[in-house]
Amino acid sequence: MSLRVFGPAQATWEAGGELVLDRQESHYLCKVRRARQHARIDVFDGQGGIWQAEVVKLDARATTLRLDAPLTCQQPAREVTLILGAPAGPALLDALTRASEAGASTIAIVHMQRSQAGRPKDERIARVLLAAQRQCGRPLPPRIVWPASLEACTQPHADSWDLFAWTGERAAVSKPTGKTGPARLVIGPEGGLHSTEVELLRAHGFAPVGLGPWVQRTETAVATGLARVLLTE
Amino acid sequence: MSLRVFGPAQATWEAGGELVLDRQESHYLCKVRRARQHARIDVFDGQGGIWQAEVVKLDARATTLRLDAPLTCQQPAREVTLILGAPAGPALLDALTRASEAGASTIAIVHMQRSQAGRPKDERIARVLLAAQRQCGRPLPPRIVWPASLEACTQPHADSWDLFAWTGERAAVSKPTGKTGPARLVIGPEGGLHSTEVELLRAHGFAPVGLGPWVQRTETAVATGLARVLLTE
Repeated sequence: MSLRVFGPAQATWEAGGELVLDRQESHYLCKVRRARQHARIDVFDGQGGIWQAEVVKLDARATTLRLDAPLTCQQPAREVTLILGAPAGPALLDALTRASEAGASTIAIVHMQRSQAGRPKDERIARVLLAAQRQCGRPLPPRIVWPASLEACTQPHADSWDLFAWTGERAAVSKPTGKTGPARLVIGPEGGLHSTEVELLRAHGFAPVGLGPWVQRTETAVATGLARVLLTE
Repeated sequence: MSLRVFGPAQATWEAGGELVLDRQESHYLCKVRRARQHARIDVFDGQGGIWQAEVVKLDARATTLRLDAPLTCQQPAREVTLILGAPAGPALLDALTRASEAGASTIAIVHMQRSQAGRPKDERIARVLLAAQRQCGRPLPPRIVWPASLEACTQPHADSWDLFAWTGERAAVSKPTGKTGPARLVIGPEGGLHSTEVELLRAHGFAPVGLGPWVQRTETAVATGLARVLLTE
């Protein structure tokens, strides 16, 4: 499996150049992942790029790398905003991991009628997103936003392919016919969307999309829903 | 959210009839979910059906239900065998939950080259599958099999739509053209498929299917891969 670290904010990115990792990343590389001298690793540049590099001096506080060449980074098939009804804390963190790996560009976390109280701390969310990046090799994390309401973040857009997840109704498969822009996908919290929320979404032009005959946990629906939007063209 | 319990093995299933839940299910209903007298619940008949029922006598050791009518149970769009490279224990259990919710008919767990040692106990697996059924309303659990090798469970079948998950290669989207039978989908363990495994799969007629540009955890790939196979017609 690839070893991936985050480069320092002030580095100069050029082939053959050297950079020194900060204390956190040096510790991760040396102590957590036990990298060896001359190991080949990937380095996030924090601007949407990933560079290949070689470990030239191991040091648990300040490891030195030599940059090789930038990797070619692919992007998902389209830009998707996941509009997620906030589930309870642990399920939310798990859902953010899945959504990050599966390719959401933006995650809008909305307190819906069936959402539980409580919201993980921002630092906890940042740590989860960072771990997902290390795991999946995604150059930048998804953008996280907290809209005030479902109403506010689902205003009709002419060019957007807009869907909400609907379990148990397989026939409701909506095709992105003629829609060239980005997509928006609504996934409800545990307990699902309330009927008034479904009404609002239909009124805003969102179409139901079936994710199979059975009720999926929010974390599962995030992955199958994003796959439905990103992998089916 | 629906309350779902498993009916006793020896019950008679007819509208208006009564049945008594066993101790485990009575405890679950009364103590874990705190159901009330006259609550409307769903009961798995263990033969692929689900009945609506009413709680007529609450008792944490032997609760009595009155059966109403059988529910119409939908099935996924096609039969899929998930061939899963065994990941480490906790990830395997999580993958089984996702695969169950997302619609795998059969899950073949194979020790692949990059699989970790260790295998959860059968009772632990049974409990996880039972919890997934309660959660998602799936009338029967997926069949779990343990083939001796990848070779043994990927022998060519003329009518089967056969795929293996391939991360980072978006172009490799295979369509189920002319394939009317069931599908087989291979998902590698943590660390992915070994190159000799990919060679074997190609030789057996399996096609690569892209799950997006980034490396997904096994548990995520199980959900996105099954969505790719089941939701794309």
